[in-house]
Order: sequence, then structure tokens, then C-alpha cells
Amino acid sequence: MHWTNKQDQALRERAFRVIPGGMYGHLSAAMLPEGYPQFFKRGKGSRLWDYDDNEYIDYMCAWGPNLLGYGNPIIAEAVRAQQEEGDVLNGPGEVLIEAAELFVSLVTHAAWAMFCKNGTDATTMAMVIARAHTGRRVILVADGAYHGSDPWCVPALASTGTLPEDRASIVYYKYNDPNSLAEAFKANKGEVAAVFATPFRHETFLDQEEPDLEYALTARRMCDDTGALLIIDEVRAGFRIARDCSWSTLGIQPDLSCWGKCFANGQPISAVLGSDHVRSAAGSIFVTGSFWFAAVPMAATVATLKIIRDTDYLERLINSGNVLRIGLEKQAATHGFAIKQSGPAQMPQILFQDDPGFQLGFAWVTECIKRGVYLHPYHNMFLSAAHTPEDIKHTLEVTDIAFSALKKNRAIGDGSPHLTDAAMK
Amino acid sequence: MHWTNKQDQALRERAFRVIPGGMYGHLSAAMLPEGYPQFFKRGKGSRLWDYDDNEYIDYMCAWGPNLLGYGNPIIAEAVRAQQEEGDVLNGPGEVLIEAAELFVSLVTHAAWAMFCKNGTDATTMAMVIARAHTGRRVILVADGAYHGSDPWCVPALASTGTLPEDRASIVYYKYNDPNSLAEAFKANKGEVAAVFATPFRHETFLDQEEPDLEYALTARRMCDDTGALLIIDEVRAGFRIARDCSWSTLGIQPDLSCWGKCFANGQPISAVLGSDHVRSAAGSIFVTGSFWFAAVPMAATVATLKIIRDTDYLERLINSGNVLRIGLEKQAATHGFAIKQSGPAQMPQILFQDDPGFQLGFAWVTECIKRGVYLHPYHNMFLSAAHTPEDIKHTLEVTDIAFSALKKNRAIGDGSPHLTDAAMK
Repeated sequence: MHWTNKQDQALRERAFRVIPGGMYGHLSAAMLPEGYPQFFKRGKGSRLWDYDDNEYIDYMCAWGPNLLGYGNPIIAEAVRAQQEEGDVLNGPGEVLIEAAELFVSLVTHAAWAMFCKNGTDATTMAMVIARAHTGRRVILVADGAYHGSDPWCVPALASTGTLPEDRASIVYYKYNDPNSLAEAFKANKGEVAAVFATPFRHETFLDQEEPDLEYALTARRMCDDTGALLIIDEVRAGFRIARDCSWSTLGIQPDLSCWGKCFANGQPISAVLGSDHVRSAAGSIFVTGSFWFAAVPMAATVATLKIIRDTDYLERLINSGNVLRIGLEKQAATHGFAIKQSGPAQMPQILFQDDPGFQLGFAWVTECIKRGVYLHPYHNMFLSAAHTPEDIKHTLEVTDIAFSALKKNRAIGDGSPHLTDAAMK
Repeated sequence: MHWTNKQDQALRERAFRVIPGGMYGHLSAAMLPEGYPQFFKRGKGSRLWDYDDNEYIDYMCAWGPNLLGYGNPIIAEAVRAQQEEGDVLNGPGEVLIEAAELFVSLVTHAAWAMFCKNGTDATTMAMVIARAHTGRRVILVADGAYHGSDPWCVPALASTGTLPEDRASIVYYKYNDPNSLAEAFKANKGEVAAVFATPFRHETFLDQEEPDLEYALTARRMCDDTGALLIIDEVRAGFRIARDCSWSTLGIQPDLSCWGKCFANGQPISAVLGSDHVRSAAGSIFVTGSFWFAAVPMAATVATLKIIRDTDYLERLINSGNVLRIGLEKQAATHGFAIKQSGPAQMPQILFQDDPGFQLGFAWVTECIKRGVYLHPYHNMFLSAAHTPEDIKHTLEVTDIAFSALKKNRAIGDGSPHLTDAAMK
């Protein structure tokens, strides 16, 4: 191993002077094991390079946006060609319409689309549209589910600077618990505007959970019975489960869906899609942004949606995830570790059993990162269509060595770094 | 004139099927005079082209972002070079630090920077930071001022789907009225977290107002006296008034400033800048977005800020605005029209006197648009550094013809289209 992180350390120190805390937001490496790079110089396909010229096979995919490979040449060419013509002008280009038409043709429930920038823009718009549509206040949200960082939805544990009234009409229920959902409806009779649900339960630090069919059916039925809207927040999982809304695999269609991250393969754009009966409410609200009608991200959207529609990108990334999962399961057993692999294989969460402080997890991913494999110790990861069979094979060689090292260190009682309870709050 | 808008009409009809209302947000042409293009195909320098191949000298600059010319070659090269390396990765590039360092070196009050995407992200972050810093709830906002489209700040007239509690702790005062500001402080004693102010009063449909010095000094003093933060929302006016915060021309520095639109010449990025004493609060909040750490807009930021620092872009766009203003004033007088030109000449608002329904304004800009000059009838406009003396000269030739046509039509009692009271609500 020739791994060093000197350049990254120097950049962190420099950043600390002009950025509060040195970095902020979900890409902050502050809670990652020591040695994880904070800054990245280059991305290509499934690979990332940091400023110390370490090369990584990457399993975070920029936390989702990288669906088809960093710098995918087809998307890059669409971006280049549109930039030549125009990007942010006094109105949108024809690509706005093309992108909306493609979305409507792909996503079963969708009759229309509205584009925005952040995932949070999409979830906030969906909330406002639901209130406009129903004339009601209450939004039911699964406790612990992440729907963005606006004051109404920022995780309660990270809500410094927000007020109780920011979430005055947000009511929490338990994901996958149809009784909890029914009780929330009952307690807010006639006042529920919408139910938010993520395609599966994908919370940080926890095992991921597939949606329970009875829960999903209850959500749909109670919305139908009361006139509330079912909103699926696809920002994290969209187009990694299906070429449609993720719950289409359960035969369930929402009224609104929120999309972000990956549908323009990294170009900045998010969207709300809606069923026809919500069109009028969607047209009645005022939302906007300086860059929302930029043509370049829409051209990237058109190019990405065509690849989603026409290629086997999805089967390939699912297959990569499965090969990785099966390989890791075997390795862990061989080395005597009990790991918990949860969530869809293409969006894996990998935790160690009996590892509440993530000590084992931290030690294992640290062995991997120093050998060129970027894994996350407590957040779901993302496969991309750019991961090749050779990438997965090489990854498994590295993880095998990492398990060996872990076993050896455990035997000699090495106190690897771990997350304290305080750091998790 | 060979002007037609057939292609634009066809695109509008097509858009209507897949976008609620056909279009949304501030770039919707629904309230513009008939014939204004909704869709744009190309931009270059000071020029725009629609889908009917009409060419326009543009005075909206994409509503601000175009500071140095559409497709400015220096920015385009910075974008191209960064795209080649990487954009959205697992962490920011070194350009994050460079962009923050440049901002801090340019803007007097700033000790740090946090980047985001929308102008609304920046104003919402500033609000949350102010509450975190002070532990107080109340935010004072000038009545009628635009600070974005999140539920807490979306204009009251356009607030369908929002709740009273979304703005429960927002208290309104009158811009340029120090007494009104003092009363708001008094009525919320010990509870004011921040005062929001725009660099000048730039409201739609109204004459723009320069900031009154006593008002600005009162805002600064009352914040100092009470520990509240002064937040200047530079999203619309930033870097078109000064190479620093706009109120630096009055000798006044804020604690926080919000920036957007133009500092990456159209690439999607916005920012909050802060004084050193607010750094710790800024580091304590949680905000993020999938694309906030994209390197390409930051590379464009670095390139744009260097041009802002090193060139006479500002003097050139101010000069263009002044030549246009003086020319229009003369033409209006010659043709017997009383026009009101308000705001800085480089961000002009042009209204007709005694024209409450904007009938004259609509008729005049319609004559201009059909001759290749894009003016806005009731919103402040934007000059760019790409407007050449020839552009201004040609524009004045067109506006002269437009005044003539207006005079002739008025003589024959032509009922030109105008905004009804209903449309303004």
C-alpha cells in the first residue's frame, strides 16, 4: 500500500479557514473513519481519485447521482452540445418539454412533470401541492425518514436553528406499520393532506427494510378513502429499483412522486411528477429558482432517461450488487464475521452484527479505503451501471484482505476508531 | 418586420400537455404581452434567439444570471476543463476552497462562505443561521420584498398551499422606513433574530427605490444594539452595484449576505457569506443538497469572481445602463410620453406614468420585441458586460420607432393588451 492522505489533510486545513467547520452537509467526511478523503479531484466511470492520487472503486456514486458512470460519454456529449447553444436563458428550451414527455412516458402514474434543483425542492413542492389540492394541513411522514434539509423536514437531531412551528403540521408514523399509519389518519381525521413514503426504509445507521406490502396497500387505501395524496419520495432510490416508480413493483401507484439525484447522471436537476387529478393544484402554486429552467441539465435528463428506457443499465447494476453481496456473505462467514447486508443489493447497507459503535465497520472500511475501495460504514451505498464484473472481482479481493486484517487486529485487541454515541447525535 | 411566433405557439401547446399550466415560475410568459416568446433556443453574448429564429438584444439576462454574456468564452472554458475532471463526486474539489477564498477576499464583511443552489436556499440558510446564532425566533422582512419561494417567504399573493404557521415568526416592516423598523423591533423586544433587507427596493410592478441612508443605518444600529443579525439579500442585485456587498457603497456591512444568480455567470450556484462572529452558528446547522458540492459551478465561480475582481465589467454595464437611460428619457420627452425610470441604471425599471394597467407599457415593449429588443414591462431588467455600445445604439433606434408607433396607435385609440387587476393577483 502506498496510500497517503497528506494533500487531503492540507486541503482540509485550508478549507477550515473559509468554510464553517471546514465542510458541511451530507458530503462532510467529519464522521467517517480517519483517512477517508474529504476532497476529490477526478471521477471516471466507477472510479474516483483524491488529491493524493489514490484511485478508488467507488460505491457511493456521489450519494446517488452517478447512475451510468462519472463522465459517461453519451451524457457528456449531450451536455456539451446543449452548452454550445444555451443553458440559462429567459425561458426554457424545447428540452424542458422533451424531458417532461419522457418522464410521463416512463412513469405510470405521471401525467405531468415540474422540474427543480434540489431533492428538497421536490419534496417541499409535493407538500405544498398536496395542501393546495386538499385544502388540508397535515402531512404524515415516517419517523426517521429523510426527505431533505428544509426546516420542515430536516432530521430532528440536526434541526439547530429551526422552530417547532416549522413542523407544526407534520405528523410522524412508523414505516412498515399499517396500524401506526391508520392511527395517524384517525387522530387527524379530515385533516390529512398527504402521506410521504420512501420506496424502502433507508435510514442512516440502521438496517434497511423492504416495504411491507400490507403497509404500502394501507397507505394507498387510506389515501383513496380520505382524499389524501400518496407521495413517494424517489429522490434516493429512483431508477435503481425500477424504470417506473419503485412501488410499481408492488402494483401501487402514488399521486405524486419526487425525483432527484440520478435522472440526469449528475447534472443538477430534480422533479415532481403528478397524476392527472393533481395537475390543477400543481399549476396553482408558485415555486421557482434562478436555475430551474437551465437547458443543460434537461438535455442530460433526456439523454439519461433514454438510456434508462432503452438499455439494460438496471439489470447490470442489480447484478453487480448481487455478485458483491453473495461474495461478501461468503467472505464474512469464512473469516468468522457476522455481517448484515440489507436493502436492495444495488443500494446495499452493510453493517456488522453486535457492533453498536461501528468499531468493526470502521476498521473494515478503513482497510478497504487504503486499498482503493470506497465503502461507507453506516449509510446505504449505490451501485452504478459503470461497475464492471472486474470492478466487483477486484473489490472482493480487497474486502477479503480487509476481513483478514480485521480478524488479525481483533485477535491482538486493536482499538480501531469508532463512532461514539455523542458523534451520532 | 418578419417577426412570427408560430414555433413558440406550437411549443406552448405541446408543453401544456406535460407541464401544469404549460409553464411555471418566474420565467413563465403567461403575464407578458402576447407574442413574447416562452421558449429560447440559443444565447450568445447579449443576444437571445427563440424557436422562430427571432434574434433579440436581451435586457433580462435570464433574470440576472447573465453578467458577462451568454456563453462567455472564459467561463465556458473553465466549465469545460472542470467537466473533463469531475463535477458531482463523493466530496467537493479544491475549487470549493478557491471559490470561498475569492469571495472572502472580495466581500468586506465575509470571513467564510457556504455554497448552495437556489437563491431561496441561501435566504433560508441565512434565516436558520440567524436563529441558531441568537436563539431567537423573529425575522423582520420588508413587506413586499422577494426573498424566494419557500413557504416562509413566497409572496403572500402567490402562497397557495402554504400555511399561516409557515410564516408565524416572520414580521413585516416597511422598506426605507426607519420608524417602521424601530416599531417592529419594539413590538418583538428580545425576540428579533435578524433583519432581512434587499440592497434597494426592487419590487415587481412598482418604481424601484434606492435605500435611504437613515433606514440602512437604523437597521445596522438596531441589530448592533439588540444582537440581531443584519442580512442583505444580494441574490438579485449582487455584483451589479459593487464588487462587494451593495451597502458597502453606504459604508454599511451586514453580518450575513445571500448571493445567487450571477456570480458563476449562469452556472447553478448560490451562497451565504458570513462575518466571523457568525461562523460557529453557521457550522452548527444542517443543510445540504445532492448537487451543492458540484465542482463545475465552483470552477465557473472562480473564473467569474476573477473577472469581477480584475476587469471593468461593472463600469461597462453601468455605462451601458446610463446611455440607455439618458437616450430613453430624451425619446420619451420628444414623443410626448412621461416614463419613470427607477432603480440603478444597470438594473432599470421602466414604467409609464399614469399607466396603472400597464397598457402603454405593454404596447411599447410589444413594438420593441417585434423589432428584436427584449424589454420587460413591469419587472426590473438587467444589463450585462456583454452589452456593447452598438447594442445600446441599436436598442435606442428600436425604442424610438416603438415610441412613434405607440403615439400613432394612441392617436387612433388602439386598445392594446394590458394587465388586468385580476392578473396581477
